[in-house]
Amino acid sequence: MTDAPLRFALIGTGRIGQVHAANIAADAEATLAWVADPFVEGARAVADRFGGRATDTAEEVFVAGDVDAVLVASPTSTHVDLIEKAVDAGIPVLCEKPIDLDITRVDALRAKVATAGVPVALGFNRRFDPAFAEVRARVAAGEIGALEQLTIISRDPAAPPAAYVAVSGGIFRDMTIHDFDMARFFLPDIVEVSAVGSTLFDEGARAHGDFDTAVVTLRAASGAVVTIINSRHSAVGYDQRLEAFGSAGMLQVANRSTSLVSLSTATAVEARAPYEDFFLQRYAEAYAAELRAFVALARGGTSDCSTFEDGRSALLLADAAQASATERMPVVVTSA
Amino acid sequence: MTDAPLRFALIGTGRIGQVHAANIAADAEATLAWVADPFVEGARAVADRFGGRATDTAEEVFVAGDVDAVLVASPTSTHVDLIEKAVDAGIPVLCEKPIDLDITRVDALRAKVATAGVPVALGFNRRFDPAFAEVRARVAAGEIGALEQLTIISRDPAAPPAAYVAVSGGIFRDMTIHDFDMARFFLPDIVEVSAVGSTLFDEGARAHGDFDTAVVTLRAASGAVVTIINSRHSAVGYDQRLEAFGSAGMLQVANRSTSLVSLSTATAVEARAPYEDFFLQRYAEAYAAELRAFVALARGGTSDCSTFEDGRSALLLADAAQASATERMPVVVTSA
Amino acid sequence: MTDAPLRFALIGTGRIGQVHAANIAADAEATLAWVADPFVEGARAVADRFGGRATDTAEEVFVAGDVDAVLVASPTSTHVDLIEKAVDAGIPVLCEKPIDLDITRVDALRAKVATAGVPVALGFNRRFDPAFAEVRARVAAGEIGALEQLTIISRDPAAPPAAYVAVSGGIFRDMTIHDFDMARFFLPDIVEVSAVGSTLFDEGARAHGDFDTAVVTLRAASGAVVTIINSRHSAVGYDQRLEAFGSAGMLQVANRSTSLVSLSTATAVEARAPYEDFFLQRYAEAYAAELRAFVALARGGTSDCSTFEDGRSALLLADAAQASATERMPVVVTSA
Amino acid sequence: MTDAPLRFALIGTGRIGQVHAANIAADAEATLAWVADPFVEGARAVADRFGGRATDTAEEVFVAGDVDAVLVASPTSTHVDLIEKAVDAGIPVLCEKPIDLDITRVDALRAKVATAGVPVALGFNRRFDPAFAEVRARVAAGEIGALEQLTIISRDPAAPPAAYVAVSGGIFRDMTIHDFDMARFFLPDIVEVSAVGSTLFDEGARAHGDFDTAVVTLRAASGAVVTIINSRHSAVGYDQRLEAFGSAGMLQVANRSTSLVSLSTATAVEARAPYEDFFLQRYAEAYAAELRAFVALARGGTSDCSTFEDGRSALLLADAAQASATERMPVVVTSA
Repeated sequence: MTDAPLRFALIGTGRIGQVHAANIAADAEATLAWVADPFVEGARAVADRFGGRATDTAEEVFVAGDVDAVLVASPTSTHVDLIEKAVDAGIPVLCEKPIDLDITRVDALRAKVATAGVPVALGFNRRFDPAFAEVRARVAAGEIGALEQLTIISRDPAAPPAAYVAVSGGIFRDMTIHDFDMARFFLPDIVEVSAVGSTLFDEGARAHGDFDTAVVTLRAASGAVVTIINSRHSAVGYDQRLEAFGSAGMLQVANRSTSLVSLSTATAVEARAPYEDFFLQRYAEAYAAELRAFVALARGGTSDCSTFEDGRSALLLADAAQASATERMPVVVTSA
Repeated sequence: MTDAPLRFALIGTGRIGQVHAANIAADAEATLAWVADPFVEGARAVADRFGGRATDTAEEVFVAGDVDAVLVASPTSTHVDLIEKAVDAGIPVLCEKPIDLDITRVDALRAKVATAGVPVALGFNRRFDPAFAEVRARVAAGEIGALEQLTIISRDPAAPPAAYVAVSGGIFRDMTIHDFDMARFFLPDIVEVSAVGSTLFDEGARAHGDFDTAVVTLRAASGAVVTIINSRHSAVGYDQRLEAFGSAGMLQVANRSTSLVSLSTATAVEARAPYEDFFLQRYAEAYAAELRAFVALARGGTSDCSTFEDGRSALLLADAAQASATERMPVVVTSA
Repeated sequence: MTDAPLRFALIGTGRIGQVHAANIAADAEATLAWVADPFVEGARAVADRFGGRATDTAEEVFVAGDVDAVLVASPTSTHVDLIEKAVDAGIPVLCEKPIDLDITRVDALRAKVATAGVPVALGFNRRFDPAFAEVRARVAAGEIGALEQLTIISRDPAAPPAAYVAVSGGIFRDMTIHDFDMARFFLPDIVEVSAVGSTLFDEGARAHGDFDTAVVTLRAASGAVVTIINSRHSAVGYDQRLEAFGSAGMLQVANRSTSLVSLSTATAVEARAPYEDFFLQRYAEAYAAELRAFVALARGGTSDCSTFEDGRSALLLADAAQASATERMPVVVTSA
Repeated sequence: MTDAPLRFALIGTGRIGQVHAANIAADAEATLAWVADPFVEGARAVADRFGGRATDTAEEVFVAGDVDAVLVASPTSTHVDLIEKAVDAGIPVLCEKPIDLDITRVDALRAKVATAGVPVALGFNRRFDPAFAEVRARVAAGEIGALEQLTIISRDPAAPPAAYVAVSGGIFRDMTIHDFDMARFFLPDIVEVSAVGSTLFDEGARAHGDFDTAVVTLRAASGAVVTIINSRHSAVGYDQRLEAFGSAGMLQVANRSTSLVSLSTATAVEARAPYEDFFLQRYAEAYAAELRAFVALARGGTSDCSTFEDGRSALLLADAAQASATERMPVVVTSA
């Protein structure tokens, strides 16, 4: 069976579910066997385009008998249940982030995942971005000596709708959580979190007591310091940069431009429409690479996929940042 | 019939034919009806993957009755015959460049194409590169005032095999011809060609009396001057740049980098593996955009596709450059 | 007297004193009348090269009768006394930063300076760097809308000698103080300081309980957030960058490269020896522009020079950062 | 005498003469002894500022007895006579380019210079630009393998007055001559010149039968090809770039920007006022370095200064380019 394509059940056919469906269809080692969504028309449209049988009942895929892997892209509140069902069924699962907004629900599932021996991966796709992955590998190879400062700039193009903000769990659990995972990709042992939040422009954030602007400082066990700079909007477009500063040099990831053209005039040099729209464009390769890595993991290999523990740690950091920003105190965290 | 996908016959299933097959399959307005190649296994493999019926006889597609458009990606020596068959059958045709290596064969077909009223497009795909197309549109819009100097740098990563060089028609007809079309995309009326060729590194070129290094200067009717700088190799990788210099400013197209990562150390700032491998990577979007433009043309619209006349003009410039470089004389050309 | 060059007394002829002497000599509106240093050979060498009379007694210049302005470049511990003497003598004074390491000494002088009506400027030269000054002016002109996030990266090339660290007052009062003044140049009303410090590489810092690595977050009254990232060393060379992020765009100051040359090979694009050595090179224009601004101020005009109050506010922020990093608590500050 | 500063006589106090005067005054190994100009007020103003005695008679300096070196910055028509006088007097001379506009006058002086043993240097200052000099040294060191293509882009900010054009000798002898010397700095043995000229925008050029736009192709004995792209104007500002393309890589000199600031908005990334005004700004370091090199040469050492023979060769190339552009024929040149 090792050579046959891995038969996926996709649960959830929203924007990100469709990305995964296309990647499964395009990956020679994967095939789409089931597509589940309570909005069954969505499931049918995806199945028609990318293959597989449609169902409105996610539970069906765990008992179908022809599923080698589950990809969970349904709403956050369903993640814990679906991961548990996959683990119980012995089927490797790749679940979109976060595991849950409530750490107690995550902790309740933790022991089972730890002992089951079933691969559980979290969809922190940025680990698979070629640029970030390259920098992490080169830092690990010692190219810049000891890592002393990691700076992550991550700004969304525009604030989400107020209704989304209301259920998002707040900027730290919803948006910064990607940056927490990236920080831990480089420096897994974070011991202290200091966060500053402001609400400067987004009425949705203001209405729900959330921040739209945040700076988070993390202290690693090694003494290295991580700085995360977030904004819910960016007039410039999606802004995704990283700088790893070490004792022997510095590795930087520039924001990705979509244009090779520049205009020079008497007053300026100008490049138009410079950056990617949003994460679906910016991280297209990352989603495909994440899928390949998960396939390898599901087949018994190793991968750089975020684990259940990584997902839990990112949520712990988000909770700590929320507490720090609200209570205006650094928060000590333990990596265990 | 305007809303149904255009049914393509693809003739030729080599490297570039496969690119076109994939683009036809991916384009919602196109579908692959026939795949022809005397090497019928190639035709079958493409048809299996991207759709359509396979045949070893190109002629079959012109009489099949279910073909709305022909895409010719077979060897250069077959182009004139296949364009003629398409025109006789009244089927729009997109033919890879060049029309032929022999201007007399091109001229023999010229009158029929001019009067038939059947769309004939040449595959000068670089016109559809987003960056080059943007610069041309902005020059046309007057952003840099009058166009005075156009500089095109075009270097292949490595010299082709000697066997290819032998039948290529020489560097000007094989490689520079893309740059001649690009020059005419900006400045259609070229009146004089001066070319300097050298043979510095490629034994294949030396064996066949060809150049591996060339600089061509074109004078446009307006007095504007075009400079084309070519090399058959580039240690740096595929090198494709353009600079339009005008009375009010300058528009530049940078070479396309594949990396966002830079390393800074005490001695240098360095970006690794910087450029695209070759034309299939660099011009992937251009091939897809060219197909979309041709579909519009085949449906009775207009397009920026190179016409048969454009293809003939590019060959005239290549012939003139060959004569200029060999006889060490500028060559006057007429655009008619 | 408005047209005659301003007659300067320079007190202190160390590295930075010599820079000021050269700028005074080169400025058509200034001339060097006195050079004072207890190490009188230093004073004589400067006077021989740039003009003026040498003395080993700073007090002499305040009574000489031919001094229009005093430039204090002597050790920090002498600043308060010399500023007071200048104010008492009614002579405008430009004093190197910081006013003092002890806020109580600063506060003791504060009322006199506030009421004396004698121009007192602090040598925060970076305000006069053409790039930083341009960004501040463009932010003030509304080019990026409301300023939401200001990010300052400031890294020295190498840690100072341990003996210097011992008397420096710590990284925040010695190094970050420039960044505090820069932060206040954009956002004068800072209300909260959070600092994280680490000691990662510098034995001098370790021996004296200082940090060599720091990240400081400032909250402005407007809710805007400033992030300052410091390191006492940088393998890359002197690293001085700034990013002003606003609701309508972003203004960035790149690190200054000293080379126009790049090498492209099969594996990399590389620029050698990229950055300025240290502040004397990087801020050469800034020192000259600062002098011009001070001359205008001394003549009764206005300037962007840091005032005594600005110097005090920067020290307050440094004290707050020291407390925050040591006690691991945010510190509320008042701008008054 | 080797340790005493070299005593210079400066002949000519126009724009470039003043640059040399300032550099002589600033160079510890040089001093200004005489300043000669028939417009004696100009000579006096320079002498007052930078030292030396003023005279309206250039001949005086050759007999004064206290002159170790002559710097000729007077009009081109005086160069041959003044070089001859310096050679006759046994005084090393650095003469601004070109030697003369008439090759017969140059040839008449050639034998005397060749046999006299007196250092004669031509003021092709760009050889001493740090970037160009670095690229040349790295090419010579083999960093890019065999040099195959050299591309020089050189555009002035604005066309000179018509009166200047009338006596300039034409674009090739006046402007391109710098590029010819730069070409020969890399590839001394040029064997063929092809030039294309256009007159597109400058009425002065049109009135005097000159070109304002030119492209010159040079073939070196090695087969390497040099391309020079010139314009008498540039909306962008002074445009000075070079690209050395070799079998193993490419070295590039970027145009020099004066700004570190960039603005990013929703539509563009923009850097303002990007380039140097003109040669006095762009090549300030080059003039100073040229002077240092000439001092070394005058003291019996070696230097990279252009020699009389280099100056003659550049003029031969300019003459060949003029003939080629006018007669529309490549011109074979001999390096002897």
